[in-house]
Amino acid sequence: MKQIDINCDMGESYGNFSVGNDKAIFPHITSTNIACGMHAGDPYHIQKTIEMAIAQGVQIGAHPGYPDLQGFGRRVIPMSAEELSASIKYQVAALKGMVESAGGQLKYVKPHGALYNEMAINEKEASTVVKAIKSIGPNLMIMGLAGSHVKRIVEAEGMTFIAEAFADRRYEADGKLMSRAKKNSVIHNAEEAANQVLSVVKDGYTQTLNGEKVELQAQSFCIHGDNPQAVEILKAIKLGLEENGITQKAFSTP
Amino acid sequence: MKQIDINCDMGESYGNFSVGNDKAIFPHITSTNIACGMHAGDPYHIQKTIEMAIAQGVQIGAHPGYPDLQGFGRRVIPMSAEELSASIKYQVAALKGMVESAGGQLKYVKPHGALYNEMAINEKEASTVVKAIKSIGPNLMIMGLAGSHVKRIVEAEGMTFIAEAFADRRYEADGKLMSRAKKNSVIHNAEEAANQVLSVVKDGYTQTLNGEKVELQAQSFCIHGDNPQAVEILKAIKLGLEENGITQKAFSTP
Amino acid sequence: MKQIDINCDMGESYGNFSVGNDKAIFPHITSTNIACGMHAGDPYHIQKTIEMAIAQGVQIGAHPGYPDLQGFGRRVIPMSAEELSASIKYQVAALKGMVESAGGQLKYVKPHGALYNEMAINEKEASTVVKAIKSIGPNLMIMGLAGSHVKRIVEAEGMTFIAEAFADRRYEADGKLMSRAKKNSVIHNAEEAANQVLSVVKDGYTQTLNGEKVELQAQSFCIHGDNPQAVEILKAIKLGLEENGITQKAFSTP
Amino acid sequence: MKQIDINCDMGESYGNFSVGNDKAIFPHITSTNIACGMHAGDPYHIQKTIEMAIAQGVQIGAHPGYPDLQGFGRRVIPMSAEELSASIKYQVAALKGMVESAGGQLKYVKPHGALYNEMAINEKEASTVVKAIKSIGPNLMIMGLAGSHVKRIVEAEGMTFIAEAFADRRYEADGKLMSRAKKNSVIHNAEEAANQVLSVVKDGYTQTLNGEKVELQAQSFCIHGDNPQAVEILKAIKLGLEENGITQKAFSTP
Repeated sequence: MKQIDINCDMGESYGNFSVGNDKAIFPHITSTNIACGMHAGDPYHIQKTIEMAIAQGVQIGAHPGYPDLQGFGRRVIPMSAEELSASIKYQVAALKGMVESAGGQLKYVKPHGALYNEMAINEKEASTVVKAIKSIGPNLMIMGLAGSHVKRIVEAEGMTFIAEAFADRRYEADGKLMSRAKKNSVIHNAEEAANQVLSVVKDGYTQTLNGEKVELQAQSFCIHGDNPQAVEILKAIKLGLEENGITQKAFSTP
Repeated sequence: MKQIDINCDMGESYGNFSVGNDKAIFPHITSTNIACGMHAGDPYHIQKTIEMAIAQGVQIGAHPGYPDLQGFGRRVIPMSAEELSASIKYQVAALKGMVESAGGQLKYVKPHGALYNEMAINEKEASTVVKAIKSIGPNLMIMGLAGSHVKRIVEAEGMTFIAEAFADRRYEADGKLMSRAKKNSVIHNAEEAANQVLSVVKDGYTQTLNGEKVELQAQSFCIHGDNPQAVEILKAIKLGLEENGITQKAFSTP
Repeated sequence: MKQIDINCDMGESYGNFSVGNDKAIFPHITSTNIACGMHAGDPYHIQKTIEMAIAQGVQIGAHPGYPDLQGFGRRVIPMSAEELSASIKYQVAALKGMVESAGGQLKYVKPHGALYNEMAINEKEASTVVKAIKSIGPNLMIMGLAGSHVKRIVEAEGMTFIAEAFADRRYEADGKLMSRAKKNSVIHNAEEAANQVLSVVKDGYTQTLNGEKVELQAQSFCIHGDNPQAVEILKAIKLGLEENGITQKAFSTP
Repeated sequence: MKQIDINCDMGESYGNFSVGNDKAIFPHITSTNIACGMHAGDPYHIQKTIEMAIAQGVQIGAHPGYPDLQGFGRRVIPMSAEELSASIKYQVAALKGMVESAGGQLKYVKPHGALYNEMAINEKEASTVVKAIKSIGPNLMIMGLAGSHVKRIVEAEGMTFIAEAFADRRYEADGKLMSRAKKNSVIHNAEEAANQVLSVVKDGYTQTLNGEKVELQAQSFCIHGDNPQAVEILKAIKLGLEENGITQKAFSTP
């Protein structure tokens, strides 16, 4: 029986600065990537998000990023391998301990923003991050861009890779995400987003804007919480999955 | 046989901002309180300090403080109990995970600066911090001001309290630390500092400036790493302890 | 002929963290207090807010606060008089230079949040802030709580004080703001808020919840930009002012 | 009559984090580049440094950098032209206002670290920074790397460029600084450093490690304040200048 996970970045509020719409989104997702305090999130909001996730039975992942609050982790910050490694260890360890102290379990790590993208194009950076995560929790799964070399790097460490795709972004024929700079790269229509999810789960491919087939294997789909249509898209996905007998369920180790 | 521990705050450098003289001090101490990234310390310096401690067999404690880099944790930052609790969990969890990933073990927590002082005069604040630490590691020992109510609060949680005294600070007749604002409150002479340590360990008291006896029980003495005479004081203490057949040794659970 | 100013705190966004609804509010106000980068605001958002204010002919004030991004300037941060003075100089100078470089003029300063409140209860703190502002711009007007001792302190420096009242907050019989902790302390109804403004401008008093008269003199009313009803309240005020032949106009030096 | 300026980066301490040896260096320099609070420096230390400079008659420059406290401005932080421009305006305006409020005058701007280097290799970045400085103070001089295109960009804006060379760094035959990664790229010997200064001022060239001539025109030499030999080097330069009848004097507009 087919199944798919839906994840969302959460816990990104910082002090009085509020981000996202976590409460409204929680009932619709099966995994939550919780900010770790470096690109966003503060301990109070992290704690509250962990508690919500546990209360709602949502699988918890850590969402570490470059230490860059002003850039929200969306800029590549030059760091030595040692600095980056220590920063990842610090962030994942903080999340892991807090989740366990609340009675939950940290299951996976999904790097954030510029770090996520950098890992998909820079093997050394990816390897540094993967090894740092392994040193904090060798059983943690690692989520990364579907089709990227991150899979190989994660598996070389004996860890489980979770391939992620995006419900609300167009793909190019070569399997890459269409640049946000291009027209129509973002899918705003809830039904279209749901169709992309269904097509990938059922048939293993989606279509480009021109109708070309793009093979795509994913175990989890990301919804952007700051997208105003997020809840609407999530409802459309849920409906589509139900109609097709597909279970929405958190991924797990094989 | 008598024994005593000597501890020092470390890992307080931040990026290019260098604090303390960790390398020179490490060979002389038996416990190190490592900054947790909120009042001082960044992941890279924390990692390096953990590695040094493990390499030299020095017992490791976490040293969380108010989230206040500019004030170096020396100012009381108004926080709700929930905010403070989450901040302590975050800091201690980060340290604990990093120490374990490096092959070591986190043994205790010593709150820093204004937080340490606030706990000694504010039961509610102390209780919040102690419970937060317990939720991350119920076996962690907690170090606090000798003679304060923190002992009772720690023990009420079923945890081990470690009483700390200061080698280079004068005490008042009522057992309180003499205010830094007063003349001669800081001991600069290495031999005098060593004598205070010896007197407390051997006889259970020290003397005020006027020669009054002050009862003082301590399991660990703190040396301030930013004190220019730190290494000299540490050597004088070591000599004094040896001459009196007292072992310098890390404290441990009973 | 009667006139009144309406002001709003703006430019409080920080990187990706968005605060307030500046674009929608700008057409309805005559003065804007722009964040200075310490409790909120970054240079980019400050610059954009300055440009909007100049384009719409809205009078510009600086809105300095305690250096406390995580607390959004709403916590009292312990600072020496020298530290506070330097921080105020820094913030006001940055705003003043940026406004002038954009072709505008900085007219006044309104301290933010906990600093504003602290000044109203602490003469020394108020004096430090007022002198720091004077040293950057002796002609700057200073806005503060109507009825507080800040007026006297500002005028003792030969500067102009602007008394501020709040459209959407209840007052106590003694002229103080009703604590937010009390029920009904915040006015959510647009018409009621407008009535409070009108009553103060026309008759020099407003009413407590129990209907007691409270004398209140103000030259400017503050609208909280993060209040969801802000635009609605602003429209109600505008209508009320027009119906009563009162001009909404920025205050100025006598 | 020949003359030369000696400058040093100062005011880089942050809260309890102390950087440099400003007090010992001040009597030996004629210009000081004061940090602006983004890569280093806080308002209190900036204020103290301004006061020292005015008291000792040392010419004051602003020393803005990338907003990157943890990286000390030594990493290239990706920023849009608008973000960078606003950040430079903010920093220079803050310094300018504070200097003027203390009774002094801001004379020039020297960008810091990675920003300084980036300007020397990236015309667009240089132009953004120069225009931002001009908008805050059209009469400010701009200091940059001797021999770089920054001169042309500054002069195209009708502003005065000040060419800077380094007393304690080796040069390559093409006029570039020898990379710090190479052996002997830093000059530790005070006399050698003084000789490089003298050779450039008297004869317009210095020598590479292999004895090749390198033409070099400079109006100011930089001494690194965190260099332990800084004061010794400064004394050697002073002696050399006196023996050769060269005046140490702050540069000025033509």
